[in-house]
Amino acid sequence: MAMEVSNKENEVETSTDLKTNYRNFPMVPRVIFGNGCFGQLGEILLPKRKSVEAPIIFLIDDVFEGTPLISRIPLFPNDLIIFISAEEEPKTDQVDFLVEQIRSEYKEIPSGIVGIGGGTLLDLAKAVAIMLNNEGKAQEYQGWDLVKKPSIYHVGIPTISGTGAEVSRTTVLMGPEKKLGINSDYTTFDQVILDPDLTKGVSKEQWFYTGMDCFIHCVESLDGTFLNAFSQSYGEKALELCKEVFLGELEDSESRDKLMMASWHGGMSIAYSQVGVAHAMSYGLSYLLGVRHGIGNCLVFQYLEEFYPKGVAMFNKMIEKHNITLPKGVCRDLTDSDFKIMTNVALSLEPLWENALGVEWKKHISPEKLRSIYQKI
Amino acid sequence: MAMEVSNKENEVETSTDLKTNYRNFPMVPRVIFGNGCFGQLGEILLPKRKSVEAPIIFLIDDVFEGTPLISRIPLFPNDLIIFISAEEEPKTDQVDFLVEQIRSEYKEIPSGIVGIGGGTLLDLAKAVAIMLNNEGKAQEYQGWDLVKKPSIYHVGIPTISGTGAEVSRTTVLMGPEKKLGINSDYTTFDQVILDPDLTKGVSKEQWFYTGMDCFIHCVESLDGTFLNAFSQSYGEKALELCKEVFLGELEDSESRDKLMMASWHGGMSIAYSQVGVAHAMSYGLSYLLGVRHGIGNCLVFQYLEEFYPKGVAMFNKMIEKHNITLPKGVCRDLTDSDFKIMTNVALSLEPLWENALGVEWKKHISPEKLRSIYQKI
Repeated sequence: MAMEVSNKENEVETSTDLKTNYRNFPMVPRVIFGNGCFGQLGEILLPKRKSVEAPIIFLIDDVFEGTPLISRIPLFPNDLIIFISAEEEPKTDQVDFLVEQIRSEYKEIPSGIVGIGGGTLLDLAKAVAIMLNNEGKAQEYQGWDLVKKPSIYHVGIPTISGTGAEVSRTTVLMGPEKKLGINSDYTTFDQVILDPDLTKGVSKEQWFYTGMDCFIHCVESLDGTFLNAFSQSYGEKALELCKEVFLGELEDSESRDKLMMASWHGGMSIAYSQVGVAHAMSYGLSYLLGVRHGIGNCLVFQYLEEFYPKGVAMFNKMIEKHNITLPKGVCRDLTDSDFKIMTNVALSLEPLWENALGVEWKKHISPEKLRSIYQKI
Repeated sequence: MAMEVSNKENEVETSTDLKTNYRNFPMVPRVIFGNGCFGQLGEILLPKRKSVEAPIIFLIDDVFEGTPLISRIPLFPNDLIIFISAEEEPKTDQVDFLVEQIRSEYKEIPSGIVGIGGGTLLDLAKAVAIMLNNEGKAQEYQGWDLVKKPSIYHVGIPTISGTGAEVSRTTVLMGPEKKLGINSDYTTFDQVILDPDLTKGVSKEQWFYTGMDCFIHCVESLDGTFLNAFSQSYGEKALELCKEVFLGELEDSESRDKLMMASWHGGMSIAYSQVGVAHAMSYGLSYLLGVRHGIGNCLVFQYLEEFYPKGVAMFNKMIEKHNITLPKGVCRDLTDSDFKIMTNVALSLEPLWENALGVEWKKHISPEKLRSIYQKI
């Protein structure tokens, strides 16, 4: 079975790569943080507006349709709001469709794209900003550094914390043949607005699973073999903030502030690190069953005490403290062939296994071992 | 006596300013970290080179003259190396002189400026990059957001850790009338190269005093009233790394890595925070006696147990552990008028006092109190 699967953190190809040629990491060149700072969006966009024919396009999670947030969008007459459901993972043909829609409606290329929502909306905004300035279809750019021309100006505004999509240089898309990121220096947002107040309406389950995306990421990268001091310092801070948020006794407001910073630092820590066993196996679940990234990580991670004893112990405390009930029997009715697919997908993510278990990782893991873990889920 | 003094961290004018209108902070858009990554400078500069007539200018601390580092500079035929002493603080007329020298030697504006050294060299590189693209004299741009045109491409390569100059949006210059930063979004480096190996040759005293610049900065900002979660998270991580470096038992290599990251995070924490009593008083010392920033902070900080009890206790442990002997009797022979000058300079830095002691700071501090501290130094 031929398949190509990658994950958003999977940018470093091998450990050798990391040790001999360091990545020149693109940081978000402009960031604003503060409760209510969303109100400054208008003045931030103003100097970027080129003409009436070149509007700003707002891609917004459709859960916000009809909410007060929409009335706060600094809309100019020719601007466009497109509401998008985040129920499904972002797809390459969805990106192509959006780009077509925007091109057919305006004579000029838009002045900018603003993504408002969780990881899905942020990834779509990044991809649309790239494709508005590049020929062909989105799927042609899945991979590493295939984007030729700079993206148009794009702004990321997270409304849930934990994915790290607000700082990363990739946008993970489901294509016709593969789930893979458009990894490029042009992917990174030009501006990020971190307003913790925007995360107020998130449900407890979503809050928990998305926060765990950050927590599990940090456990895996800090425990891995690919780490350097740059990523370690960001990862440690993100992990510490996760502990405060999920095990401490913070006021709601402080908790929102800190989880937003955890996501930010966790995303930065990707620069010179890699994820591990949970992410690899979670991609198997996601590939076969469409399980979302955040909850998929949790489903796998609970059974990884062998690999991450301290991390799993802490995770169990967090689950307990917040009365989270993880779904059970997810893999109950799967066939031999299904398990094989998931196992193959997981094992194909070699850099993740090398990071987790060292260069001789193949000696320490087997398809049978993975199957035994999947069967518990 | 009319005077205007500011410091590199002194960008937020008042606490009100911070609470109602959040700064849209410019981050360094490109950073590379790793031992030996200095070797990638050539490939990083290559796409920035516009023509033979538009060279790269390297401003380098003259302690490196004749050392192996110089042979590693990726020099093109028309490029220029200018060695500069970091013995004295950078001056506006020094910037003007450098700009004049570069303009007279080349027909075109250079393709880029690379600063290699400590805070002085980094600040000079930033200022020269600004002035090569802007009219008039450097002193005309001291202040906030006075720079009209973008600076030319400029790269910062620190060879000592602690100043935070590698990430800040200011360049502090001694002008004919005032010591004040050119605070501007155009000041921030376009690229930073963090190669901890470059800090190998630093003397123990310099290492300590410059590291304490970061440590004291963090104590002051974390203890202050201007903080938000963004700056707090960076400041906490920087402080933690300082503790590891100066009180832990690290290998030399790990210690260099971590101090470089402490400086980086400490610099980032400036975004939404402010320094306090030590920096204010240190500026008095610097103004009257020309005491360098790093050692000046230490001279003052040792006597601030009343304001920062935990921080000063930790500082004393660090001094002891590394057998640092601070100069004594620095203010022994000063006159009444001298003390008045220092006290006035320190008290003129109002945002620092407000940060340290709250809006009613004037009730808690007096010229006599400051003098009594200065007299101990």
